Parts: sequence; C-alpha cells; structure tokens
Amino acid sequence: MKGFASDNYAGAHPEVLAAVAEASAGHAVAYGADPWSARAEALLREHFGEHAGAYLVFNGSAANVLSLRALCRPWQSAICAAGAHVNVDEGGAPESIAGVKLQAVPTLDGKLTPELVASQLGRVGDEHAVQPRVVSVSQSTELGTRYSSYELSALARFCHERGLALHVDGARLANAAAALDLSLREITTDVGVDVVSFGGTKNGLLLGEAVVFLRPGLDEGFAHLRKQTLQLASKSRFLAAQFVALLDGDLWRRSAAHANAMAARLAAALVDVPGVRLTQPVQANAVFAVIPRSATAELRRDWRFYVWNEATGEVRWMCSWDTTADEVDAFAAAIARACRAASPPR
Amino acid sequence: MKGFASDNYAGAHPEVLAAVAEASAGHAVAYGADPWSARAEALLREHFGEHAGAYLVFNGSAANVLSLRALCRPWQSAICAAGAHVNVDEGGAPESIAGVKLQAVPTLDGKLTPELVASQLGRVGDEHAVQPRVVSVSQSTELGTRYSSYELSALARFCHERGLALHVDGARLANAAAALDLSLREITTDVGVDVVSFGGTKNGLLLGEAVVFLRPGLDEGFAHLRKQTLQLASKSRFLAAQFVALLDGDLWRRSAAHANAMAARLAAALVDVPGVRLTQPVQANAVFAVIPRSATAELRRDWRFYVWNEATGEVRWMCSWDTTADEVDAFAAAIARACRAASPPR
Amino acid sequence: MKGFASDNYAGAHPEVLAAVAEASAGHAVAYGADPWSARAEALLREHFGEHAGAYLVFNGSAANVLSLRALCRPWQSAICAAGAHVNVDEGGAPESIAGVKLQAVPTLDGKLTPELVASQLGRVGDEHAVQPRVVSVSQSTELGTRYSSYELSALARFCHERGLALHVDGARLANAAAALDLSLREITTDVGVDVVSFGGTKNGLLLGEAVVFLRPGLDEGFAHLRKQTLQLASKSRFLAAQFVALLDGDLWRRSAAHANAMAARLAAALVDVPGVRLTQPVQANAVFAVIPRSATAELRRDWRFYVWNEATGEVRWMCSWDTTADEVDAFAAAIARACRAASPPR
Amino acid sequence: MKGFASDNYAGAHPEVLAAVAEASAGHAVAYGADPWSARAEALLREHFGEHAGAYLVFNGSAANVLSLRALCRPWQSAICAAGAHVNVDEGGAPESIAGVKLQAVPTLDGKLTPELVASQLGRVGDEHAVQPRVVSVSQSTELGTRYSSYELSALARFCHERGLALHVDGARLANAAAALDLSLREITTDVGVDVVSFGGTKNGLLLGEAVVFLRPGLDEGFAHLRKQTLQLASKSRFLAAQFVALLDGDLWRRSAAHANAMAARLAAALVDVPGVRLTQPVQANAVFAVIPRSATAELRRDWRFYVWNEATGEVRWMCSWDTTADEVDAFAAAIARACRAASPPR
Repeated sequence: MKGFASDNYAGAHPEVLAAVAEASAGHAVAYGADPWSARAEALLREHFGEHAGAYLVFNGSAANVLSLRALCRPWQSAICAAGAHVNVDEGGAPESIAGVKLQAVPTLDGKLTPELVASQLGRVGDEHAVQPRVVSVSQSTELGTRYSSYELSALARFCHERGLALHVDGARLANAAAALDLSLREITTDVGVDVVSFGGTKNGLLLGEAVVFLRPGLDEGFAHLRKQTLQLASKSRFLAAQFVALLDGDLWRRSAAHANAMAARLAAALVDVPGVRLTQPVQANAVFAVIPRSATAELRRDWRFYVWNEATGEVRWMCSWDTTADEVDAFAAAIARACRAASPPR
Repeated sequence: MKGFASDNYAGAHPEVLAAVAEASAGHAVAYGADPWSARAEALLREHFGEHAGAYLVFNGSAANVLSLRALCRPWQSAICAAGAHVNVDEGGAPESIAGVKLQAVPTLDGKLTPELVASQLGRVGDEHAVQPRVVSVSQSTELGTRYSSYELSALARFCHERGLALHVDGARLANAAAALDLSLREITTDVGVDVVSFGGTKNGLLLGEAVVFLRPGLDEGFAHLRKQTLQLASKSRFLAAQFVALLDGDLWRRSAAHANAMAARLAAALVDVPGVRLTQPVQANAVFAVIPRSATAELRRDWRFYVWNEATGEVRWMCSWDTTADEVDAFAAAIARACRAASPPR
Repeated sequence: MKGFASDNYAGAHPEVLAAVAEASAGHAVAYGADPWSARAEALLREHFGEHAGAYLVFNGSAANVLSLRALCRPWQSAICAAGAHVNVDEGGAPESIAGVKLQAVPTLDGKLTPELVASQLGRVGDEHAVQPRVVSVSQSTELGTRYSSYELSALARFCHERGLALHVDGARLANAAAALDLSLREITTDVGVDVVSFGGTKNGLLLGEAVVFLRPGLDEGFAHLRKQTLQLASKSRFLAAQFVALLDGDLWRRSAAHANAMAARLAAALVDVPGVRLTQPVQANAVFAVIPRSATAELRRDWRFYVWNEATGEVRWMCSWDTTADEVDAFAAAIARACRAASPPR
Repeated sequence: MKGFASDNYAGAHPEVLAAVAEASAGHAVAYGADPWSARAEALLREHFGEHAGAYLVFNGSAANVLSLRALCRPWQSAICAAGAHVNVDEGGAPESIAGVKLQAVPTLDGKLTPELVASQLGRVGDEHAVQPRVVSVSQSTELGTRYSSYELSALARFCHERGLALHVDGARLANAAAALDLSLREITTDVGVDVVSFGGTKNGLLLGEAVVFLRPGLDEGFAHLRKQTLQLASKSRFLAAQFVALLDGDLWRRSAAHANAMAARLAAALVDVPGVRLTQPVQANAVFAVIPRSATAELRRDWRFYVWNEATGEVRWMCSWDTTADEVDAFAAAIARACRAASPPR
C-alpha cells in the first residue's frame, strides 16, 4: 500500500540503486578516501559553490545536529521555529549530543523572520544566558512552505550583522529549489546561507545526507566531529555513489519537481471540495488540510497519512519522487467522497 | 587494485545488493516499523536467542558507543584492552558521546582476562573514582586473535559476580564463530555475554551493525537512545534487508569462513618464508607479521595493507569475503620475493 | 550602598559567620565524612522528613542541574515555566551539563498548573520526541509569587499519575514556607514533592544549597553524580556548618519571614502611590511593579535594583534578611517622589 | 584528632576567616562584579603576570575540568600522568563534563617528560584518534615531588612546538613555589605554562581555587563556561576575599613553606628509622614511605593517614599549614615505636 504518509516511505530511485551496485565492484579505500567520495564532494562544490566543504553523513538528524555542533561552542544556542524538526523530532539530540540549547520561536507557517529572531537576542554577553550563535531554518519547511530567496537573503544579512550563522535544514532543499526554479547555490550560498543539511534520503536515496559548509573556515575540525559523532561511514563509497547519482545530472531536480507537482495536483483537485480546507500554501511537496474527523478515519482504511494536529484535525499529505498522477487522482477522489459522506447535504 | 588492507575495503556481497534492490519496491513505513525490520529482528533472535533485543544502527562505532551508553550511568566506566577499537579508533566518542571513561588495560594479544579486569576494580563505591560497569572485549580481536567459549564464559562469570556487564565488540563476530565452528548464540548468549555489537559491514554489507541485548531488561529506553544518538535510519528497510540477506541462510558464515580460510592460507604460505615472523596466532581473518622494512616498502607498490606498528615494522594483512585464493597465492609469493630481496643470502 | 537589587547582594548572617569560624578549629575528615555534614543531614531530615536524602552543593544552579541530572535518563526532559531560572539564567547548563532538554511553558505568574503541564505530554513513547520525566517549579517563583500547598499537591498528584517527578527549585523555599506559615516538610514532602533544591545562599549563607531527595530510591548514585559534576566540597564542614546554623533553630524562618515582611511593607507603602502599578501579588520577598521610566532612571542614581522587562518598564525590588524597615521606608518615599516628578499633576 | 591524612583536613587560616567576616558587611553586587573580585583578579595578575586572566571557582576538580574544557574542542585530548588527580580522583568529570579523553601515561614519580608526552603523539590529523591538545601536569605532584623550573620550561617548549598547551594542576602550586623559593610567576608564566589551576583550599582557604590563563586569547568565552559548568558564585565576594587574604601579603607562601618544612622535618626524623623506607623525594608537603603493615595498623589507632598502595604497604603523610613541629615530632616518635614493635631485633 503506497500512500501520502511521508517522502521517506518511498524506496530508492532505480538510478540510485544502480549506482550503488556499480560502486560495489572491487576494493576501495574506506572512510572517505575513495573515488566516489571525491566525486561527490566535487559535485557538491559544483552545485553549492567552489568554497563548499561537504561531508556525507547517514541521516538528517545527524546533519542537523552536526551542523549545530560544528558552529556552537558550549555556551552558544540556536534559534529555530518551534515546530522545526530539530526542535521536536530529533529526540533531544541537539541538547544531549551537541550540547546546544535551542531557542524555539512559535510561528504560523514554519518560517522565521528577522523580527522573530530579534525577539531572542536580548542578552548578548550575559553569562547567565546562552548566547545565540546560529539561526536554523527549514527549507522547505515542515509545513510545506518555503522561503523565497529574498526572505533568506534578508535573514542572512540580519544574522551576519549580529554575528549569527544561518543554517538551513535542507532535508527537502531540493523541493524548494525545484519549486523556485533556482539552483541549489542560488538559494543557499548566493543568499548568504552558511551551512546546509542537504537531504538525500527523502529525495530518492537509500540513505544519506550531506553537511555542506558554504564559506571557508566554518568546518575546522569537522572531519573529527563527524567521526566522533558516529557518522563516518567505513564503506564510504556507498554513501558517495548515491550522491553522485543524484547530482551528476538532474536526478535531484527531476525527483523533487515531480514530488512538488504531485502535491500541487492534489491541492488543485481539492481546492473546491466541500469539507476540505487547505491550511498552508502548497509550496513544495506537502499538502496540509483540515478535513472532518470522520473523513480522516474513513480515508485511513485505505491510505496512509499522518494527522498533524490532533486538536484541530489537521492532516498532512506528502508526495514523493514515486508518487504517480493516478495515485493522486485516486486519493483526491477518495478524499472528496469521504468529505461528502462526512457532511451530507442538508 | 584489491589488497589486504581491510575487510572494509571490500564491496557488498551480491546477495546483499540484490536484497536491497528488492526491498526498494513500493512504500514502507519508516523508522523501523517495516516488515524487513521485523524479519531482521526475528532472525537475530533465532541466531542469538529468544530474549535477544536487536537494534540496527549504521556503523560499528555507533554500535559500541551505544552499547556503553545504554549500560552505563554517568559515573560508570568500561574496562577494555588498551588496543581495543573502542579505545583507540573511535575518535573519543565513548567519552564525548556516551560520557563513559574507559579503563584501558595493556595486553599482548588483545584479550582481557579476569586477572586483567580485576586489576581495575580497586575502588568500588568510592565517589572520587569512576565505577566499572562494563567489560568490553573484541571478538575476534583487533589482533586477529579470538576468545574460546571457555575464556568468554570465565570472563562472564567473573563479571557477573561483580555486577559488571560483558559487552562484545563483534565487528568480526562472524569470523570468530566461523573459526570456532559454533553458532552466534554459542559464543555469546550461552557463555554469558550481555550485549553484542554484531557487525555486518566487514562481512559483506553496504553498511549496518546491530546492537543486540542478550538478556531482558538491559535495553530499557534503548529505542530512544538510538534515535537521540543519530542512529535511527528513516528508510529502515534498507538496513534490515541486508541483515535478512546475511542471516536468513548461511551467508554470514560462508563469508566469514571464507575470509578466515584465506588468512589461514596466507599464513600457511608464509610460515617458512625467511624474513617473515608471524606475531599473533592466526585465528580469524587477519595475519600479523614482522617483515623487513624494505620488503614492506617494496610490497606496498602493488598491494595495499597497513603497517600496524611503525616502531617494530609489524604489518597487518586482512582478508575479506571477496579475497580469492589466487590473490592470496600471488600476495604470498610477492611477500616471499620481497623478503628475499631484503635479506640476500650471504 | 545597600538596595533592592537581589537577595544575593546581601552578606552572610552573623550567626552563619560565627558557625563557620567555630567549625574551623582542628582537623576534620574531608569530602562529607565530618560531624558537621552528619549534623546538617540530620537536620535536613528533621525539616523535610525521615526519608530525606540531602546532599550539599555550592550553588543554586548546581542544585537544579544536579536534580535534573539525577532524575533524567538522556532521552528524558523537564517541563518548566518559560521564565524559570533553570530555563533562562543557568547559561544552558541543564542542556549542556545534564543533557536534559527543557520544555518551557509560558506563564503569566511564573506558576505551572496541571493543565499547562498536560499541554506538553502529547507524545509518550515516541522515540522522536523527548520524554517528559520531571516537572520543575520554583517556590517562591522568580516573580515573587508562590504556590499554595493545595496547588502543589494537585500538581504532584497529576505528575505521579503520569510517571513524572516533581522538582522544586527552592532557592527561596524558606520565603515560601515563612509566608505560608508552614514547615518545610509541609510544603514539600507532605504535598508530594520528590526533590528540592533547598536554597541557603539567598537566605543568609556565604554560599551553599542542598539537593534533598524526599522519597527513597531517587538518589541512587547521587554521591557519584555530585562529585562528577564538580560539587563535592573538600572541606565539607564549611558548607555543612552553615546549614547547621540555618536549621538548628529558627534562623532560616526568621530571616525569610523578615525579608517577606519587608517586601510586604514596601508594597503596602506603594499601593496607593500614583504612577506605581504592582504587577504581581507580593507573596514572598519580591515586589514587581511598573513605574515611569524617568522615575526608574531617577531612582537608580541612589538605589540598586533591576529593570525586569525593558519593554514594559517593569522593575523588580527584592528584599533580603538584612533589609531594614528604615531602608524600606526611605526607598518607598523615594519611589513616590520619583513617580510624582515623572507624572506632574495636570 | 589532627593527623597527617590530608592538607584538606585542616581548617581555614584565621586571616582568611577574618577576611571573610569583614567582607560580609553591607551589600555587594553578585556574580563577580564586586570590589573583592576586582582586587583578587588584580592580585592574581600581580603574582602571575599582567596578562593573567583569573577566574575563581569552588574547588580543584572544577579548576582542572574547566581548564580542559576551555582548551579542548570535542575531538581533542589531554595527556597526563596515570596517577594524576585529574585521571583518578575526579570521578570521570574530565570525560563526562568536559568531554575530554585523557591519555594517561604511567610514571614512577608522578612527573611527565617530553619523552613521555612524545609517546602519545603518533596520530596527528587522524580523525579516528583523539588529537592531543593539552599536557596537564601536577605541581607539586600527587607523590609529593615537584618539577624544577628547568623541567617545566623544557616541557612547555616541547608542547608549544607541537601546538599543545601546558596546564598545571596547581592544587599545591604554592608548596612548589615555596619549596623552590621562586615566585608563582617564575614557575608558571615565565617558564611557558599556559593555564594554571591555582589552589587555595589546601593552603588555608575555606574553599576556592582560581583558573588562571597566563596568555592572552586562551580564555575566550570562559566566563560563560564557568557559569555553565556551575562554578560562578553568586556572593562572589566571599571567594574573592579569601584570595585577597592569601595573596595580598605573603600568607600563601608562609603557609605553604610551613607545610613543606613540617614534611621535611618528618622525613628527616625518619630517614634512619629501621623499618621506614621513604619512597619518593620529599620536595613539598608530603612524605611517602613503606612501613610494616602492623606498624600502619598500630599507628592508625591514634593518627589519621592514608595507605596509598594496599599492595606495597606504601603510606602517605601529608602536612598542612597548621601542622605543628610538636605534632611532627610526636608522630615521628610514634612511627619509630611502631616500626620497632613490628620488627623486633633478632
């Protein structure tokens, strides 16, 4: 049963699987000193800029936590949206593994602004308070929204004027870039982002993310940190070969754009359905909506998806690289049926 | 260029690759709630005993560090051989990530004994000293030696009488089991081991290890610890499918036994070669030897391997699942030639 | 220049100084095995109940952070008021030293309720989310308010039904007890509190706080934790002798009641002063008020106190064991003068 | 019962007590912004050099652990003698609180040399191994020996050539300086030491140590680290006033020299006593000796002291600022008697 639960419910893209199988021939030096790793790093520089220092890790939590660990001394903190993955879905790893306190700011749409960040900057130099060092934003966000390059640029400028670094949790950065029709570089390096967690898993890899430092000097000692934080793959070629498949061509954009298109198709099919209220603009590969609870219950017999907010009945529908138009259409029809049944015409 | 550098220079076994490709079809629940994960856990119970609680993680450092993190409260320590991987090759992760001090004991052959452990137990209850809680041994060891089941049993009994848990770093447990012609259970659960880091990567996986708790009650909260320590795979089926391939049949033993046989073949070919002195008994898939430095230099032009001890000129030759008899024979011949050249007849 | 800045601007009570000097004679076993430590622990049992396990530490941050460290495994969290000292004034120590994520809840009066706690309990058992283990409240609060014993009792019952422990940051517990005219036991042990940070410094000690575990079984290994967290005094008699002076008689209550009375006197003197608006009920030794900014500026020429909220102009006036009625009266008069000058009659 | 157990069994010097009492008058700003703190910091600059950045903390464990925490990034390690306090008597705090792995080197006399340090420097740049950053030595050592300024100078030069910082655990630095008849600066700053844990507790304070950074740039963010590591005193004047008493005059040297003289007197009285074998040169305030076990048992009825090594019967006799010549003579006579009784003439 496929569904709309999460883009990490999808399998690996066939091109990725082929690349892994091909990389398996013969012996290769372990721990990153293999040709695939060199090629993946070169491709990440092509996509993010010549100063990009890229380090592959196993998963997104690791990419985020290692980014914070690299940027923060023990007394420094990170500012993020209250609903950010790093705040609510990483099991306390930022605090326990990186030793970094998060200053979580409530938002309506999952997005930080300079004003919201400013609200957290009141005690500079005060040793009794943690000292903000990083602003971490998700692009696209956990609510399926995205930052424009203008918004990111303004945020980066604000950060840099205050000695803060800007980190992007890019588990779905490809979706944002595809949706904005910009290159990865144009929505990161060029707008002033300092460090990116660049996601591969949700975009068709078996597993694998990259921590990409976009400016020289930020990754001092990071190879040591990666190893110590248990994220250095011994048969490193297998992580790297996947990134080569993703980035040496347009697989990354093809897959992400497809997922976005499927979400847009779903939203379009639902916009006039009685009983469905879209709660966030559909700007990447997620659709958020409130539907009647009985419709949710009915739909979940046949389709997997998450209730995002038990209190409001809000649900999340996620599209992935392998979601088909037929599946979207069938799901949209099922939603419409379920909502009709839930609210019979009076 | 293949070689004898490390068993993690080898690729993935074709059966493992096939299992991964097959598992990729369709959608599956993420984070461990997929059928492959259930099957892998069941197989690990089959191999390690009905009480085995198994948790897949990305790499061996993680398996070891998480084992310590699970077993130790902050004031507790682990006793290990000075040359243990956990002491010298994990970048300080036991201390920095698990917060566990290691009490490292020098050994000649990489193996701990009750007497060596006893030497570290002098200050029970003294709050100024860390309190030993775990004894961690490597099986097979970093020096290619192995514990007999009798030795492990004696160590386990000694540990349990003193409230210590016995952990096995089993990055190469399969090699030890194959060499002893015992089941995985017979050299762990049945002799009193408490927790195992069961290695897959060095035995033909792309990546993947399992932390296996062999007695009830030791893994309380471990699912949380794994997630927080950045080791919960989102597309968990891809780790699990590899373990299914390894354990649902005899692939694990076939591969390990083959690697062992290749090491034995290499040792046998060298035992009478002038200039070669084997420094450890060859009991698994590694050969340790001292050869003339000029022979080492000559050999390294064509073959990859590590100098283990710069001071003594000791080298390590490692065999893997894909080492061929022809390669062993060619390498042995090259060694003999190089040693002859290094020590011309007078 | 004395003032109303903080109760930790006051010196040590003469009886405390005398006790320290007296304890200095001769030699005494270090690290807690001295007669003063035994006596202090016995007195803490007298005051908190026979099961009270008390451990002296150097300061309040340590008492709080050690309480959390003792109660929480790495994946567990603590729920506290957003303005709690532990959240905003301990330099990130709960996260960095105890590895505990805080779930901070906004409040109007510094007090948690079962409903506020309940809002943080949505993801029990979910490994992606930290698992609440402790509810930490301040008594009296950072806003000079206090919990009634009924409120604490309801909170404790709510906590225990959900497997949560109730911790009290009692840096000013004496003030709360004195204000409620209850014993220390009646507002802690008897209402279901599990662990207290019992403050001495703000109530007339040179330095010193006690972590008091009120139920058996909670302090397992705590002697080790205290040592490891750098809080075991070598000349332990000097911490202990102060607690003996505080608790062997009524010095603790005398001092706290006096500070409370001075705050009440100040509030009473101001309640009808034009331009002064008290912002919190005065229930311990603090007075919070909004006064004209120009009045604040004028007053601070002669008197020390803190502006609590730059945005609203709210100020905090703190009384201590050595605040005199004359000082209160002079300060109240100065406030009235300054406010009058700031808002001339039209 | 006084004795020879430890210099932290002694009370506080009367001049210290007087200073504390005097400092208690009136109100003072908390957390280090008081005049006593300023004066103590100025005095520490006078004694250690104009660039000395001094931070008061509560105890010696904290001074050591904070020194390491300040100097090391997470992947860096500290090299110390195996018997160093930081390795064996701080409850695992360096690892658990500072996250720093120690590389402990066995020594005969408690002292490191460039050669011993060099033995730990084999894997520079290797991400699998921790990277040495600090060499930590105790002066005087835990075995009552001391480094000459020449030895320290050689060690500092060796360290600096390799990018290592030299830390001195100076819990008994005053004893070393007094014994060498040098200033504090001459045995630290002038010979190239980078950071000192300067002890006060063992030299007549109630409690209190100072972390002193001897070169500019090493203490970046240290005020934050101290606060976060729970070592910022709120009524900071009371720590500071003790250091003023110690350093504003020659109390520090008087007390330490006296303790040294008492140890020398004891050693001199014992040197020819049959059955007593001194095991270390007496270079500070400690005497180490092997005596018959029955003599130890007999002596401990009346005198407190520690058996240092149960295996060899080695004992430690420690003198302090308040040890009297009469006590030394009485103790020496008792030792002679006990040894005579233990080994009757044949």
